[in-house]
Amino acid sequence: MKVHAYVADSAGARLRPHEYEPGPLGPNEVDVRVTHCGVCHTDIGAIDDEWGFAKFPVVAGHEAVGVVEATGDAVDRELLPIGLRVGVGATAGSCFACEWCLSGRQNLCPRRDDVIFRGLGGGFASHIRATDWRHVHPIPDALSSADAAPLFCAGTTVFTPLLTHGVRPVDRVAVVGVGGLGHLAVQFLAKWGCAVTAISRTRAKEADARGLGATDFIAAGEEGALAAAAGSFDFVLSTATGDLPWDAYLDLLRPQGKLCVVGVPENAISAGVMNLLPAEKAIVGGIVGSPVQTRQMLDFAARHGIRPEIETYPIADVEQALDRVRQGTARYRAVLEL
Amino acid sequence: MKVHAYVADSAGARLRPHEYEPGPLGPNEVDVRVTHCGVCHTDIGAIDDEWGFAKFPVVAGHEAVGVVEATGDAVDRELLPIGLRVGVGATAGSCFACEWCLSGRQNLCPRRDDVIFRGLGGGFASHIRATDWRHVHPIPDALSSADAAPLFCAGTTVFTPLLTHGVRPVDRVAVVGVGGLGHLAVQFLAKWGCAVTAISRTRAKEADARGLGATDFIAAGEEGALAAAAGSFDFVLSTATGDLPWDAYLDLLRPQGKLCVVGVPENAISAGVMNLLPAEKAIVGGIVGSPVQTRQMLDFAARHGIRPEIETYPIADVEQALDRVRQGTARYRAVLEL
Repeated sequence: MKVHAYVADSAGARLRPHEYEPGPLGPNEVDVRVTHCGVCHTDIGAIDDEWGFAKFPVVAGHEAVGVVEATGDAVDRELLPIGLRVGVGATAGSCFACEWCLSGRQNLCPRRDDVIFRGLGGGFASHIRATDWRHVHPIPDALSSADAAPLFCAGTTVFTPLLTHGVRPVDRVAVVGVGGLGHLAVQFLAKWGCAVTAISRTRAKEADARGLGATDFIAAGEEGALAAAAGSFDFVLSTATGDLPWDAYLDLLRPQGKLCVVGVPENAISAGVMNLLPAEKAIVGGIVGSPVQTRQMLDFAARHGIRPEIETYPIADVEQALDRVRQGTARYRAVLEL
Repeated sequence: MKVHAYVADSAGARLRPHEYEPGPLGPNEVDVRVTHCGVCHTDIGAIDDEWGFAKFPVVAGHEAVGVVEATGDAVDRELLPIGLRVGVGATAGSCFACEWCLSGRQNLCPRRDDVIFRGLGGGFASHIRATDWRHVHPIPDALSSADAAPLFCAGTTVFTPLLTHGVRPVDRVAVVGVGGLGHLAVQFLAKWGCAVTAISRTRAKEADARGLGATDFIAAGEEGALAAAAGSFDFVLSTATGDLPWDAYLDLLRPQGKLCVVGVPENAISAGVMNLLPAEKAIVGGIVGSPVQTRQMLDFAARHGIRPEIETYPIADVEQALDRVRQGTARYRAVLEL
């Protein structure tokens, strides 16, 4: 088999078609023929080598949806038959032997297969190979393949903290940033039963945010707007990719509240000690979920009619899609059709 | 009644005797005749006005132990009879009506009576008045009054996070700083069943730390010592009052680990984003416990023979005690006898 992929040869390069041979299929491996792949901000980071760890040539894409094309000998073929519609996200394998895997936290396995660190092997391609079939997730019928794609990174990244941190339907929560991640977070949290405030720099996305389920909206760029909401929230989920005035966001929290950071700011996070200690506040980091958490997210999205707002692009227009994400103008997630 | 107190008239002033009249006793109030009062780093902060919020004249002291001398009409006198040996810590009252009080988190009540913000009214005095009797805690017989005093701030500050954050006996924990707080934390955690590593700048306190129950010791000032312990701990409790290289301490954590800050550093805490997100790590702030948590701490200390190592000073030598704390030379907590 040959994989027809779209590679960047160097930082910021335009993608070009490239074929590679993935080699023989291992016993636990699964080849998925990709029909759709979401474009994540992290893909831009890899292609543009924003963080200095990209391996070129790189094939980006870790929100891949398609159908099972081939499965290794150890794969349970009743659970994962050929032709099944599935997705492969940011984690495409883990050891299933370490304490993290054995305790259901395969997303924290030190030997996990992070697609973004693969170099070749991403989802902007005809096929993606999962190194372990238990990281290949069936897609509920209620979700179209195009809609499902962004759930595999953006969706699980914003959904997992609700499980990890025990967010409750009685909680008052804020979502910072209404973009690829944030517009899903608002929907999840609204259906989770929470009072949801969306926070964006301007009011440009207010109507969208309210349409997605936000009950309140704060334009952080308006003088005094953040200060007026001090002490309002049990949980603040930051999906912002720029640096925030962190103390102002800690101020938004009620006692024992958590500021959960899932967007990647540019610089270190700085927090005043008196914003953390006296009210037992916390800053926590979040990442994509485990297989079980990912499947709970898919089920929750299917049951509640949650879907990303997407712009679809044929793979031939991949540069256009990438530029929309680079510029932050995608409404709200770009999805490639392969 | 007159209270004979030791006041500082201005930042850094030597204490002088001063009498004040506390006024009539309110229905929920309790007057405690103080026999012992611990000296906390925060007292130095108040006397020296390190944080700029001291109200002079100030009477410091919020680790007061003594006997009940008078109780208001609404106090349950079976639970708190005259003459009972009790302690009053950093929180001497709360509203018992807000959601924090009603949900057992009286230490987070926005209307709580923080002794350190009183100005007059601290425990370096013949008497301390609690504004609510439910913040006056009986002392188990197994604890001497002198030993009990430091438990009312130092003890509860390091014990409460074990409850709040669900630290488990199977966890590997580190205590940063072997001082007034840290030497109690090591004991609590050892009896909690944890593997406890004490972290100090040099090896000067290694023998002490091991004697208190530490199973391991790291001298953070030794080249490469912190790096060698990367990924070792589920919970790191920082009692340090100086600034730490926070990223190095976040590196000590295993996935989903928490860095709990209960010592007050001088400057803001700064954390690299990649030290928080990929392994779901957290930075959390801690504060003294609620009444129930404080009583659980006292009971735990009594059952396990946990007691602070103290230096006792008659109140006439208060300046000597303050200087030991100022210079960080107290081994490990100074207690005044009144």
